[in-house]
Amino acid sequence: MHDRLVTLTTDFGPHSNYVAAMKGALYAVNPAAVVVDLTHTIPPQDVRAAGLFLSDVIPFYPAGTIHVIVVDPGVGTDRALLCIEWAGQIMLAPDNGCWTEAGLPGDRVVRRLTETRFWRSHLSATFHGRDILAPVAGHLSRGLDPSALGPRLNSELEDYVSLDLPKPVQSDGFIRGEVLFVDTFGNLITNVSQRLCKSLRRALVESHSIDRFVRTYGEAEPGSLVALIGSSGRLEFAIVHESAAAYLGVGVGATVEVVTGD
Amino acid sequence: MHDRLVTLTTDFGPHSNYVAAMKGALYAVNPAAVVVDLTHTIPPQDVRAAGLFLSDVIPFYPAGTIHVIVVDPGVGTDRALLCIEWAGQIMLAPDNGCWTEAGLPGDRVVRRLTETRFWRSHLSATFHGRDILAPVAGHLSRGLDPSALGPRLNSELEDYVSLDLPKPVQSDGFIRGEVLFVDTFGNLITNVSQRLCKSLRRALVESHSIDRFVRTYGEAEPGSLVALIGSSGRLEFAIVHESAAAYLGVGVGATVEVVTGD
Amino acid sequence: MHDRLVTLTTDFGPHSNYVAAMKGALYAVNPAAVVVDLTHTIPPQDVRAAGLFLSDVIPFYPAGTIHVIVVDPGVGTDRALLCIEWAGQIMLAPDNGCWTEAGLPGDRVVRRLTETRFWRSHLSATFHGRDILAPVAGHLSRGLDPSALGPRLNSELEDYVSLDLPKPVQSDGFIRGEVLFVDTFGNLITNVSQRLCKSLRRALVESHSIDRFVRTYGEAEPGSLVALIGSSGRLEFAIVHESAAAYLGVGVGATVEVVTGD
Repeated sequence: MHDRLVTLTTDFGPHSNYVAAMKGALYAVNPAAVVVDLTHTIPPQDVRAAGLFLSDVIPFYPAGTIHVIVVDPGVGTDRALLCIEWAGQIMLAPDNGCWTEAGLPGDRVVRRLTETRFWRSHLSATFHGRDILAPVAGHLSRGLDPSALGPRLNSELEDYVSLDLPKPVQSDGFIRGEVLFVDTFGNLITNVSQRLCKSLRRALVESHSIDRFVRTYGEAEPGSLVALIGSSGRLEFAIVHESAAAYLGVGVGATVEVVTGD
Repeated sequence: MHDRLVTLTTDFGPHSNYVAAMKGALYAVNPAAVVVDLTHTIPPQDVRAAGLFLSDVIPFYPAGTIHVIVVDPGVGTDRALLCIEWAGQIMLAPDNGCWTEAGLPGDRVVRRLTETRFWRSHLSATFHGRDILAPVAGHLSRGLDPSALGPRLNSELEDYVSLDLPKPVQSDGFIRGEVLFVDTFGNLITNVSQRLCKSLRRALVESHSIDRFVRTYGEAEPGSLVALIGSSGRLEFAIVHESAAAYLGVGVGATVEVVTGD
Repeated sequence: MHDRLVTLTTDFGPHSNYVAAMKGALYAVNPAAVVVDLTHTIPPQDVRAAGLFLSDVIPFYPAGTIHVIVVDPGVGTDRALLCIEWAGQIMLAPDNGCWTEAGLPGDRVVRRLTETRFWRSHLSATFHGRDILAPVAGHLSRGLDPSALGPRLNSELEDYVSLDLPKPVQSDGFIRGEVLFVDTFGNLITNVSQRLCKSLRRALVESHSIDRFVRTYGEAEPGSLVALIGSSGRLEFAIVHESAAAYLGVGVGATVEVVTGD
């Protein structure tokens, strides 16, 4: 139990002193914890960006992993801190919906963190990641049962916040969606999933038309604008070896229209 | 003893080849070491920034942790390399004061690294982090006693360099300090500690007046300029969900004046 | 065998969701793997930059280390994925030459990955780092013998790609080379190795003349332009405490001429 993975996802910026202090607070409870940085570059307080990031990542982790998520615009208000058990993984996160799109199978058990004996004795008002979530993750990585952390929330009442991602609209042979994020290479990743568009005829990103559909970047010559189903199972637009975002001048929220011919 | 934490703090830039090579030199001595990146984004050769970073981070780590600090404008000169034992933690650092503000309780035992048998056999002239500090950290993480590394320095003579951080000046109900650093969110963190200003009436950052004091960011509406005691116990100025540094046009070294009414 | 090091070198950008998902796929096979980020900031699809990075880093790692390298402009084409055993270390990489300059002693055993039972069952077309290399690294870190991964390639036929780094040209007392990369500090690192220039008389970078040769940065006053043999054993040009690249206005590929007087 002592080598359970603990991952960190924050908006603190890479290698900030906040991240380094959080790790210290975690190791102070369990020096044998195995800590993995997922990202610290979620845009500040951007709960939706955190949700999208986690939806691409969490499903690949094994049962037993503990994920600490600190994207927390409500720190210092009375928003709850949650412990979520889902498909054998555990998430610790503020109650703002950042975790709800993680896309794991089965039911969730959600608890509110109330048992202060697992927190640092000296609480700051502005840094609950270091003072509450990190030590709680330390205790869980040592084998503490989540039921010790606080009362279970009623999932039927859904008495916690859910992330409201924009959903694509589908009608006969036509889908209207949008760009959800832009990756490091400038590829435009959309909210149109593989499941929705088994056959593709034509796509529009804002006013730019795309009729070249490929299975992989390797099928197209450098510089050509293509559409493909990316590694996360979503429709994306790319220019081979260049940035589609820069070339088309579009970003997050750009309208996407797809003619599927289904 | 084989799973003792070894942390790294450098100015090499994130994921530079220098960092990757240092880790290799460390793992070559102890493949079972547990290595934690604290930061590699200290501004190049900025000893003061390193000292501030460490003062916010080191106190949260458990006894037994080994910290390697490579911010070393004097590499290649005859400046000493030090091993510092302090409150059960160990720091390895060049003798430039970067470690002296770490803020641990109790006495320090400071040694000069002289025992070359714990170094790489092939020394470069410019990269003592990789060739000396990393292998020494590897040996310490395997249980080597620090007394084997070199002679103890005389702490009464203070024959090592201390960091000279700007100190706030206090008179009746009035404190004059300055901005020590700007965090990722654009918050202005000052050298005025919580201890100095238990009650706050009014504050000035350069010519900008602030009379809104809050306990947490959550108490203020987005866009409002506020003062608060931050997670590191220092007075800071912030604009909720925005950058105070950008809005006020001030940065490190800006004058801060506080009327406490004490 | 369970704590064998697995390092990651990619062009995905720091802390991207691709890196986080790759780690998940690796831990899913071996939750006890020890994963080390070398860098994720190789310029996108820049095989030569990856090769240079690895040449400065790999020689410092101990035997037994497993290196996963994902800089893969050919993903989705029929380029091979390779497992290379070299001096007791193992590299997993696309067949584009990124690994051939690693600079280890002795012979290489190179295999093509063909045994799909060690891959994720659900392969994406665009993300072989996550779906093939990460799980294969997981199996190797659990003790799998590389011979199980696929057939050995014939090293005499060199039926894999080699990196073609620009080589310096040497004639009587004169070397013509070029700048290979620019580090975080703005130092210009060249392809002229220590071995080639035991004595140095004068150097030119493009039209800028340098006649100050030092052993370490500490020997020169801040602001002076100097040449030295850097920590990777290559001739480099630097301005103490400043950026030589910015000051001289030169970068990768700039011509370097050295008069050695040998």
